[in-house]
Amino acid sequence: MRRPPGEARRRLLDATLRLYAAHGVGGTSLRMIADELGVTKAAVYHQFATKEEIALAVVQPAIDALAAVADAAEAAPTRAARRETALTGVVELMVTDRERAAVLSGDPAMAALIGGHAGLATQARRLSAAILGASAGDPESRVAATLLAGGMATAGRDPGLADLTDDELRTHLLTLARRLLRMRAPHA
Amino acid sequence: MRRPPGEARRRLLDATLRLYAAHGVGGTSLRMIADELGVTKAAVYHQFATKEEIALAVVQPAIDALAAVADAAEAAPTRAARRETALTGVVELMVTDRERAAVLSGDPAMAALIGGHAGLATQARRLSAAILGASAGDPESRVAATLLAGGMATAGRDPGLADLTDDELRTHLLTLARRLLRMRAPHA
Repeated sequence: MRRPPGEARRRLLDATLRLYAAHGVGGTSLRMIADELGVTKAAVYHQFATKEEIALAVVQPAIDALAAVADAAEAAPTRAARRETALTGVVELMVTDRERAAVLSGDPAMAALIGGHAGLATQARRLSAAILGASAGDPESRVAATLLAGGMATAGRDPGLADLTDDELRTHLLTLARRLLRMRAPHA
Repeated sequence: MRRPPGEARRRLLDATLRLYAAHGVGGTSLRMIADELGVTKAAVYHQFATKEEIALAVVQPAIDALAAVADAAEAAPTRAARRETALTGVVELMVTDRERAAVLSGDPAMAALIGGHAGLATQARRLSAAILGASAGDPESRVAATLLAGGMATAGRDPGLADLTDDELRTHLLTLARRLLRMRAPHA
């Protein structure tokens, strides 16, 4: 991949994320990205060769953050600490980077576009294992994990929840996730 | 809206739903729908004037089904029966019409495309009120409702859950939803 100057690259990725959030990944064309930036399509192609490369670059920071959460969880000394580290890390990412998280785990076209390249499936598997432990293969646990991942992505982009502060959303998501997974709060 | 013969209309809507599930609503063009059916774009235009009309016709059966669930819930005699009727009705719809439900409540481009026309927001409000009752306005309850709606839509389209039968998915979704909402099972 050609390396564009950092600032132009960041502007392009920010604009693309806004378009993804409004039109979906499948509904965002290179033409729309160029128009949003006020540049030509050729200028976009100068930075990224394909739609896939842009999509990957948009979500890579979130995937890297998930990998860091998984690293921390796996390094925790007890099963309770592993669960707690993984769950709070995922919720934190969902809350503080809402649009990117929603695009990453809530858009049907994203998975098709980035395929196996980004390592998302690997990080999702590591985090599921850390949170669910020995029950990771149970059907009920698998449904719970999907419910949480998809539900949190939806919560991050729901205009009906836009009035909640990051603190409020974080608190409610943690309470609800712990209830769903039958986890105790850490100081309870 | 012009009324195409029933069979051709049904084929077009089925093909469109498959394309939505694979490429997202925003990533599905009239050209792709025509190609999928092996007809010309003009033939598609003969049945529907716009992309919006097709999107609305694809999801209308699910919105009508949600309205019927809301009617039944509101007619139930007790608060417990209203909750139970609304929750089981929504889960049933999610399980038995997985693709349509996922497209309706899980695709960011769908809301933008159909806007207020379809009455989806009205039905969602009626069902939330039936399920959450007096707590419908609490932030925690609002987050729980979004988590469930978005999570169930994701569960319906997750290839990792495709091995579950309708019965299994229904059972787990009901168990998890009741736990999240602190509802008793009806015969507990």
